[in-house]
Amino acid sequence: MKVLILGGGGLIGQKLAKSLAKRGTLRGAPIDELVLADVNDPADVAAPFAVTRIRCDISDPASVASVIDADTDVIYLLAAIVSAHAEEDFDFGYKINMQGTINALERCRALGTRPVVVFTSSIAVFGGEVPQPFTDHSALNPQISYGAQKAIGEILLNDYTRRGFVRGRGFRLPTISVRPGKPNRAASGFMSSIFREPLQGQPANCPVDRDFPHFYLSPRKCVQNLIKGAELAQEDLGKTPTMIMPGRVWTIGQMIDAMTAVAGPEPAQLITWNPQPEIDDILKGWRMDIRPERAAKLGLEADSNFEENLRYFLEDDVAG
Amino acid sequence: MKVLILGGGGLIGQKLAKSLAKRGTLRGAPIDELVLADVNDPADVAAPFAVTRIRCDISDPASVASVIDADTDVIYLLAAIVSAHAEEDFDFGYKINMQGTINALERCRALGTRPVVVFTSSIAVFGGEVPQPFTDHSALNPQISYGAQKAIGEILLNDYTRRGFVRGRGFRLPTISVRPGKPNRAASGFMSSIFREPLQGQPANCPVDRDFPHFYLSPRKCVQNLIKGAELAQEDLGKTPTMIMPGRVWTIGQMIDAMTAVAGPEPAQLITWNPQPEIDDILKGWRMDIRPERAAKLGLEADSNFEENLRYFLEDDVAG
Repeated sequence: MKVLILGGGGLIGQKLAKSLAKRGTLRGAPIDELVLADVNDPADVAAPFAVTRIRCDISDPASVASVIDADTDVIYLLAAIVSAHAEEDFDFGYKINMQGTINALERCRALGTRPVVVFTSSIAVFGGEVPQPFTDHSALNPQISYGAQKAIGEILLNDYTRRGFVRGRGFRLPTISVRPGKPNRAASGFMSSIFREPLQGQPANCPVDRDFPHFYLSPRKCVQNLIKGAELAQEDLGKTPTMIMPGRVWTIGQMIDAMTAVAGPEPAQLITWNPQPEIDDILKGWRMDIRPERAAKLGLEADSNFEENLRYFLEDDVAG
Repeated sequence: MKVLILGGGGLIGQKLAKSLAKRGTLRGAPIDELVLADVNDPADVAAPFAVTRIRCDISDPASVASVIDADTDVIYLLAAIVSAHAEEDFDFGYKINMQGTINALERCRALGTRPVVVFTSSIAVFGGEVPQPFTDHSALNPQISYGAQKAIGEILLNDYTRRGFVRGRGFRLPTISVRPGKPNRAASGFMSSIFREPLQGQPANCPVDRDFPHFYLSPRKCVQNLIKGAELAQEDLGKTPTMIMPGRVWTIGQMIDAMTAVAGPEPAQLITWNPQPEIDDILKGWRMDIRPERAAKLGLEADSNFEENLRYFLEDDVAG
């Protein structure tokens, strides 16, 4: 079993690699090799199998061909640039998020080996006047270019799967929080930083009100779901391999209350409340009555509560 | 007012050109020039304004640049290869139907002139396990590559419109019947030929049962809707410029009864009833409870009945 993580240097890619290293198996078979490919050198991960780290520019077909070969059994297609970045740089967003996905799928088709492809889409595919609740069968109607690029990726994944070129499964990720490390350029970045920084004694800014609701999942549960996602039987996916990954809706206020329950009152006092006009346009289009019914039936899971999510962060990222 | 029809040599392109020639105006302004661009030389159309006919390969950005210039006010993006052809030739389908659409939109973006772009999508964007009825807000879940390519076109049209690069409006066309001329490679081809040929004394084959339902629109009403579509105010399109074009569901039996009412019993006797396994896979995925609510509210129209549709064919195509 040879597993490739495209985007293997990113937050989810690295946590997935560590989790695979701990398990040693995927889809019922021992992992022989894990390839971590990313635009920058991915960090190493200690594992009981070979770990190969490669630079890969997903927008370049030759570079993609160098990391996907006939032995690659499972591909995690996580590489992407995030929402605010794709909104800022139209060309670069399409180059990485659309053309990159095309390049990976085309490479699989050329090989003829029908690998499992786990694709991460986003709840940003929903929006506009489409009525809530958003279900697995709601219209794709993104209101940001990042969402458009992910929606196109979903449609391609579905078509390449139907045609027998890959065994695709796509998951529309909730906003991942609490993200460790440095802020990225996602409009949702503050949804991690207002917990990550204060829990480590640093200030952070929240540009929205306490009653701002959003749809969240912890990195730990996301990785569990991505592993489960690779292991699903193709016949359980029917004619629609992409679905919403489970998450839960919380308001900022509920999450801050959870932080206070877990870590006392001091962290919340480190939060400032200044508006950021540059992300308002992105945030105002989001509605959050999201029903991840298909994934829940297939055994994927959300966090039980946000306190649990915060404890995962302290265990996995602060303590480690 | 300079109007371009990409696909100006096709059935709808030619009828649209004739209709524009008769009107002389679009969006309240006199038409100065109509450009008919197609992969083969488009037939000429007599008009009270200049008609330019150009060969254009929509899959080639330079060729697209040669037909869209800074004076182009309205672009009809009709060029496409049809369902069975796109299913048979995966590469060619994506090249024409996806990359061709990208090329046209990218040319508009490079010019910075924000033309009106009328894009023809298809009810083939619907399918799979998505529950009926199919509304303007149902999931895009195509089960043929042609539908996938049209769904991608919709998402791009929406994003390019939102970003202010074009003033897009997309319409998911019903199956157009009765189509004049020669059969094309659409899986739905028989839905025209079983009327077109018998009404002109020729035999034709029907590969499905009398109770097979489908969603139809006459060429005449389609052209009326495309003209209306170009004239809609952008603010009436909201955050979802693509919608279902009105049509009506009839069974083959109802349509044959309409033919008998219009032309007597002889034509129906010229129909043979042999299955065609090569189109079964395409047809079996189609469901037809389709509700074109947004377009109906905006004043687009279906045929009142199939007899009317057959009379349009006799008036517009057989008599003429």
